[in-house]
Amino acid sequence: MYHLMIKTSFAAAHNLINYQGDCENLHGHNWRIEVTVAAKELDKAGLGIDFKILKKQTNQLLDEFDHKYLNDLEPFKKASPSSENISRYLFERLSKSLNNDNITVECVNVWESENACASYTRD
Amino acid sequence: MYHLMIKTSFAAAHNLINYQGDCENLHGHNWRIEVTVAAKELDKAGLGIDFKILKKQTNQLLDEFDHKYLNDLEPFKKASPSSENISRYLFERLSKSLNNDNITVECVNVWESENACASYTRD
Amino acid sequence: MYHLMIKTSFAAAHNLINYQGDCENLHGHNWRIEVTVAAKELDKAGLGIDFKILKKQTNQLLDEFDHKYLNDLEPFKKASPSSENISRYLFERLSKSLNNDNITVECVNVWESENACASYTRD
Repeated sequence: MYHLMIKTSFAAAHNLINYQGDCENLHGHNWRIEVTVAAKELDKAGLGIDFKILKKQTNQLLDEFDHKYLNDLEPFKKASPSSENISRYLFERLSKSLNNDNITVECVNVWESENACASYTRD
Repeated sequence: MYHLMIKTSFAAAHNLINYQGDCENLHGHNWRIEVTVAAKELDKAGLGIDFKILKKQTNQLLDEFDHKYLNDLEPFKKASPSSENISRYLFERLSKSLNNDNITVECVNVWESENACASYTRD
Repeated sequence: MYHLMIKTSFAAAHNLINYQGDCENLHGHNWRIEVTVAAKELDKAGLGIDFKILKKQTNQLLDEFDHKYLNDLEPFKKASPSSENISRYLFERLSKSLNNDNITVECVNVWESENACASYTRD
């Protein structure tokens, strides 16, 4: 089985809801995003999926978050904009746009700092 | 499924036992530690487990190792203090303190250099 | 289960075949390689496999690629020298040289840049 992974990032403000502590205050992060897809087979150029497509689809999606206040956005009107929920949202959106007979989104890692990462993974 | 990962580190001396080569000599490392847990569900703040708790529990445990000579410590009286055995020991201790209905320790990565890592993984 | 991972690198030229775009032009990368093996048991020194052996076997293999034009090499006479195909080739060669009752090569990650990685993984 082949896997392809790309790294990218976005910067945004957020604050956790239903939380007591520093993270309930308005703050922000440079989130680093890692998207991993599985590919069953390679095309005649030897690619599972062109990294360019993977980066483009991911960055188009992240444009919705970049330099925004996440709590104001539709996906986080009802769900606390934690790294866990960001990860799940990106996973579900990318699965819709990327999954096909050959490609399956496996995992989205959301690093909120150099030392802390939340992931949503296809079981 | 959600996964949460934190990175931390400790510095210590050790020497492998029952080994012939450089690593039988007293030396040391800045070990970098990565702890990954799985979380079934998120709380109302959108967290699987608060990174603060994960870091605190891990660092409390690593205080037993930090700036020590590992061969002198109880866990390594009988087992060579290799990165593999350090990883398994941390995995078992963290599993005892962290595992519950929602959280399961999945993996402890122990980097003894920038380019060499040993892990103990739940199956 | 124990896992051991080492990182190393090679520099080479390549161009994708059967591809339309930048990557069909002759260019090159500093590929970073990550090899992960599983180890069932540890030896009396506490090692699954000595990192020195893992690095030596991997680097001997990478000597075939380092500072070469990959398209000229036997493994890529018929297969486009994509990171995916490099990964699979390294995986298969290392599996032959390393696998035994205790050790199984699990994964070879091939980073063609800081932000793009292809992997071949044992199922």
